[in-house]
Amino acid sequence: MKTYLDCIPCLIKGALEQARLATDDERVQKEIINEAAALIPQFSLGLTPPEMARQLHQIIARKTGSRDLFKSIRARSNRWAMELYPKLKEKVVRSRDRLLTSVELAIAGNVIDYAIKNTLNIEEEIQKIFGDDFSQEYKGIFEYECFKKDIATAKTILYLADNAGEIVFDRVFIEEFCGHRKVVFAVRDKPSINDALMEDAVFCGLDKITHVMSSGVDAPGTILKYCSEEFLKIFQQADLIISKGQGNYEALSEAERKIYFLFKVKCPVIARHSGAKLGDIVLKRSK
Amino acid sequence: MKTYLDCIPCLIKGALEQARLATDDERVQKEIINEAAALIPQFSLGLTPPEMARQLHQIIARKTGSRDLFKSIRARSNRWAMELYPKLKEKVVRSRDRLLTSVELAIAGNVIDYAIKNTLNIEEEIQKIFGDDFSQEYKGIFEYECFKKDIATAKTILYLADNAGEIVFDRVFIEEFCGHRKVVFAVRDKPSINDALMEDAVFCGLDKITHVMSSGVDAPGTILKYCSEEFLKIFQQADLIISKGQGNYEALSEAERKIYFLFKVKCPVIARHSGAKLGDIVLKRSK
Repeated sequence: MKTYLDCIPCLIKGALEQARLATDDERVQKEIINEAAALIPQFSLGLTPPEMARQLHQIIARKTGSRDLFKSIRARSNRWAMELYPKLKEKVVRSRDRLLTSVELAIAGNVIDYAIKNTLNIEEEIQKIFGDDFSQEYKGIFEYECFKKDIATAKTILYLADNAGEIVFDRVFIEEFCGHRKVVFAVRDKPSINDALMEDAVFCGLDKITHVMSSGVDAPGTILKYCSEEFLKIFQQADLIISKGQGNYEALSEAERKIYFLFKVKCPVIARHSGAKLGDIVLKRSK
Repeated sequence: MKTYLDCIPCLIKGALEQARLATDDERVQKEIINEAAALIPQFSLGLTPPEMARQLHQIIARKTGSRDLFKSIRARSNRWAMELYPKLKEKVVRSRDRLLTSVELAIAGNVIDYAIKNTLNIEEEIQKIFGDDFSQEYKGIFEYECFKKDIATAKTILYLADNAGEIVFDRVFIEEFCGHRKVVFAVRDKPSINDALMEDAVFCGLDKITHVMSSGVDAPGTILKYCSEEFLKIFQQADLIISKGQGNYEALSEAERKIYFLFKVKCPVIARHSGAKLGDIVLKRSK
């Protein structure tokens, strides 16, 4: 997905949020915004939003020396989600269609990340997930039947992780289909906002059920040109790719592979591009 | 009020909205955003937000030749509000405290402007105004008793207008106190978003009950250093100043005059600065 003009103020806003996590010094924060703003004229709209975000992160790291601003947030999200794990499992076990329930939960995990960042009431979000009407609510594009068929025949699956904490929800989902399949779970190579890293995947036990690897990327989306050779080989050969979150969708929406995108629609640009509505949960197959 | 870092992405967003009103050519829109972004490093946070907005408007006017992007929106707002005028009057006439009801309506007018710009349901906003609980709702800071005393003794009142359409609500308010007082109604000198100009004031009949004049300003706030000599004289000598909208608040919150600020809190920065909550309606006396 190309970058839309609407993404620009949003990227500047994101840079400001991160600048504030990195330093309390308003002078330095303003310098970061100045540098971020100065980058805008050089950006081509042909680039994807995660690519622009990546450059903004580099400015913040250079100006403040802080390369892992979300470390404590990542750790907190992981602990919190791990405590929830037994309840998530129970919900799946008790459901009529375990795969359906687990994929819904995986997308729900993407909702909760948003709640954490926007200080929404997490308890309320959780109640929504455990309520009976969760399955009915918010479903924009939801190509479940098609997904069910495709996953039944896939032998190797590449799973592109999004955020820390959320990966516990991914684990519950993956446990429903990993039994007789090879699943590769790809995380970011270096810190990028609160996206999951190797340490998060290990903490949350993903290494017990999948082959966890780094994609080689240090951006909040799987930008193929920055991925490692090893990752790209798997990306090309996997029978099926499951991509979590908006960032991976932005980076891969035009990729020529069989990808299922799972995400919550968090902004109007993604809504327009994906054809879903703001707030919808989406399970969408690539073109 | 100084410009906060949070204002920067918001100003860029505003520039984009106006760029889109001015032209359908995305290339030109991007050029406008580029120029707006390039301005950021030169901005001092010591300036007020309307001052930054003014410079952004100049970029758009220069790039597109469009100097009055909101002309049709202004006209539409005026017509719509004039149709509502009899109902507004009736509400005041039937109320127990006419001054109170009319000042509430004047602030309600500021709410509706926001509805128009954000394509909220205007009918719903109107219902809120005419509902019985309007007076109780949303009142953050509301120094009405103090205002009532001050207006009782004021002989000359300067009224700083905000948006087109909204000025009909101002008219209903002013009609409650203009009888034996001199009221000067100040509008912007040149188009600045949908802010009221002389033609709007005349269309809405403000010239029948007040002395309508231009403040000399071409920004979405009464920035004193750009005001005319004639206006500044009245600004210094008026017994009381009534200032409508966030833009005028941003420009004048530190001014050493007796000013009552009337506005709807539309952004978190103003909420923090004014001490009210997002969504509140405010009647606040200057320090």
